[in-house]
Amino acid sequence: MIKQYLLSPGPTPIPNEVELAMSETMIHHRTPQFNKVFEEARGGLKKLFGTKNDVIMFASSGTGAMEAAVANLFSPGDKVLVINGGKFGERWLNIANAYGLNPIDLKVEWGRAVKVAEVEKQLEAHPDIQGVLIQASETSTTVLHPVKEIASLTKGGPLFLVDGVTAVGVVPVPVDEWGIDVLVTGSQKALMLPPGLGFIALSDRAWDRTKKAKLPRFYFDLNLERKNQQKGSGAFTPAVSLIFGLRASLNMLEREGIEKVYARHARLCRATRAAATALGLKLLAPDSPSPAATGIFLPEGIDADKVLEYLRDRMNVTLAEGQDQLKGKVIRIAHVGYMGAFDVITAIAALEMALRKFGAEIPFGRGVAAAQEVLMEALP
Amino acid sequence: MIKQYLLSPGPTPIPNEVELAMSETMIHHRTPQFNKVFEEARGGLKKLFGTKNDVIMFASSGTGAMEAAVANLFSPGDKVLVINGGKFGERWLNIANAYGLNPIDLKVEWGRAVKVAEVEKQLEAHPDIQGVLIQASETSTTVLHPVKEIASLTKGGPLFLVDGVTAVGVVPVPVDEWGIDVLVTGSQKALMLPPGLGFIALSDRAWDRTKKAKLPRFYFDLNLERKNQQKGSGAFTPAVSLIFGLRASLNMLEREGIEKVYARHARLCRATRAAATALGLKLLAPDSPSPAATGIFLPEGIDADKVLEYLRDRMNVTLAEGQDQLKGKVIRIAHVGYMGAFDVITAIAALEMALRKFGAEIPFGRGVAAAQEVLMEALP
Repeated sequence: MIKQYLLSPGPTPIPNEVELAMSETMIHHRTPQFNKVFEEARGGLKKLFGTKNDVIMFASSGTGAMEAAVANLFSPGDKVLVINGGKFGERWLNIANAYGLNPIDLKVEWGRAVKVAEVEKQLEAHPDIQGVLIQASETSTTVLHPVKEIASLTKGGPLFLVDGVTAVGVVPVPVDEWGIDVLVTGSQKALMLPPGLGFIALSDRAWDRTKKAKLPRFYFDLNLERKNQQKGSGAFTPAVSLIFGLRASLNMLEREGIEKVYARHARLCRATRAAATALGLKLLAPDSPSPAATGIFLPEGIDADKVLEYLRDRMNVTLAEGQDQLKGKVIRIAHVGYMGAFDVITAIAALEMALRKFGAEIPFGRGVAAAQEVLMEALP
Repeated sequence: MIKQYLLSPGPTPIPNEVELAMSETMIHHRTPQFNKVFEEARGGLKKLFGTKNDVIMFASSGTGAMEAAVANLFSPGDKVLVINGGKFGERWLNIANAYGLNPIDLKVEWGRAVKVAEVEKQLEAHPDIQGVLIQASETSTTVLHPVKEIASLTKGGPLFLVDGVTAVGVVPVPVDEWGIDVLVTGSQKALMLPPGLGFIALSDRAWDRTKKAKLPRFYFDLNLERKNQQKGSGAFTPAVSLIFGLRASLNMLEREGIEKVYARHARLCRATRAAATALGLKLLAPDSPSPAATGIFLPEGIDADKVLEYLRDRMNVTLAEGQDQLKGKVIRIAHVGYMGAFDVITAIAALEMALRKFGAEIPFGRGVAAAQEVLMEALP
C-alpha cells in the first residue's frame, strides 16, 4: 500500500492546479500584481458566500475567524445562545467564555440536529439574547443544523453567527438570501487549500454592530481589515501563496459549477451512507447528515481507534476519529473538498478489509456495491 | 467524477516526491553539482539492472534505447531472430529493417509467450544468427516471455537483446546473473518518471561487439556516451530535471525494497485477474501474464474502445486499449509504476460501472470483492 489517501474532514486533498498556483514565484504583497490576485479572489469569495458585502480574509485557521466574529460583535457580559451539539459547538462556547460573554449552552444530543422549536423557546425565554451561535455543519457529529430556519427566527432580533467551516462550498449557505449575519469558513475544507486562511462575511447590520462592540481586538479587527482589503491587500502580511491557491480553487469551483459541487458532495455522502447501511453499520447522524463527512459506528467490541490506526499506518488511508463520548466507537469518512467517486470506493473497500482484519464478518464488496449504485447517478 | 486516474502502461502516475525533485532549481549540466546527482542515479540504475557495467542514459524514449542497441551492435545484413508476439515485437522488427538487418520474424500468437523450444529450433536452423531480440514484457498483449530460459540458450552464441521497458522494476531481469547482453527500459514505467529518458545496459561481450558493429550512429553512440557518462554527464545535454527525478525515484524503490516492489506488481496483477475472472471476463494472457498490465476481453457485442472512451471522458479513468487485431475487444489495466491496491479497486469498480452502462449484466462489487481477497495478502 504505497499511496496516501487523505479522507479526513480537513486538511483535505489539494488539487494539482492549486498546488501549481501556490508554487508561483513569491511576490510582494504591496504591489499592483498582488492586488489583482487578491481582488479576483475577493470576487470569487463573494459569489461563494452569496453576499454583496466583503468577505474578509485572515492568515489564520477557521477558529481565528470565529474569534474575529465574537470579538468584533459583542461587548462584555452580552448574552448569547450557543447551539452546542458537538466539538465545534463547544468551540463557540469556549470563545464566548474566553471573551467574558454570558453564553446560554443549548445542548443537543450528539448526532442530532438542533430542533428549531428549541431555539425559538430559548429566544422567547431570553429576549436579551444578543447573538445565536451555531455550526451549519457540525463536523464532529457529521450533522447539518437547520440554519435557514433559524435565520428566519433571528431576523430583526439577535445576530446570527454561523460557523460554516465544513459547510461553505459543501451545501448552499447564501448569506444575504437567508439573512445570516456572520458566516465563517477556513481554507482547508471545500476550498481545497492547505490550512492557513480564515474567512468571514458580515451582514450590513453586523457591520453596524461592530461600531458598538466593546470587546478588545487587534489582529482580528474587522473594520481595519475591511478598509485595507478593499484597497487590495491586508492590514498585516497576507499569506501570499495561499491566496494564489485560493484564486485557483475558486476558479475550479466556478468551472465545475457550484450547484454541481453541492450535488457531488451530497452524492458522495449518500453513497457512503448506503455502503455503511449495506454493511450493517449504524450511522452517527441518521436524520440530518452533513455531506461534509459521514460518521459510522463500528460493530460492538471493535475499537474504532485501533481500526483507524490500522487504516492509517498499514493501509495509508486516513479517516477521522470519534471524539469524546464517541471515541473508539465511531469513524468519520470525509467527502469535503477535492473528493470524487473513487475516494468513496477506496474508503469503503479499505474499511471492509480493515474490519475483516479486526474479526468482523464482512462480505467483501457489499458496501462497495451499494456505493456504486448511488455513484452511478452521476454518470451520463 | 473530478479526479483523473491514470492506469495506462506508460506514462504512469508520478509520485509527489519525484515531482518535487524535478522542481528543483535548474542547474548547469557541466558542474560538480550535476555530476553528483548523475553519479548517484547511475549507481541506483546498476543495482536495478543487476549489472556491474554502466547503464547508459539517453534523453529519448525507450524506443531510442532500442535503436541504440541495434545501431551499436550490428552490421548491415546481419541475421537476427525477432520474437514477435505483439506491437513491441514488431518494433524490434521495424528497427532491424530500418537498419538493413536481415531479421527472422518468429511470430507468436498474441496473448501467448514464446516457447523456448521454438527459439531453440530457430537457433539450430540458423547458426548464423547474430542476435535474438525479445520483449521481457510484451506490453501490448500483457505477456511475459521466458527471458531467463532463452538467455541460457544464447550463452556463447548470438547476442541476446531484451526490451525491458515494462519489465525493469516490475519483475526481476538481472542482466549479469542471467547472461543478458542488452537490457533496455524507459523512464515512464516502473521508474515512475515522465517520459523522456531511455536506458540501456550492455554485457562485456556486447561492449566488445560495439567495436566491430558497422551500422551508423551519432546521437545514440554508446561508446561516446559511456566515456562521457563515466565522467558525470552526457555527451549531449542531458534531461537535467528528469535526472533529478530519477535519483528520487530510485531512492523510493530502494526504500520500498526491490523485492517488495516486484511482489507489489505481482499482487496487483493477480488481484486484477481474479476480479476479471469473477466478473466472467476472459483474460488476454491466460498463461504467462506480465505484472505490468492485465489485458481483459470485454463481453461479445460491447465495443471495448467505446467503453474505454466512456471511462476516460466521463469517469476520468484512463485504461489502455487493445491494438490491431485486439482493437475494440480488449482493455488493458496497468499496474506498472506508482500503483497500489486502491488503483486496482478503482479500476475494477469503474469497469463494473461502465460495463453496466453498456448493457452488461454486472453484479456490482463482485470483481472488487475478488480483488480485495488477493490484496488482503499484503496486510499484516
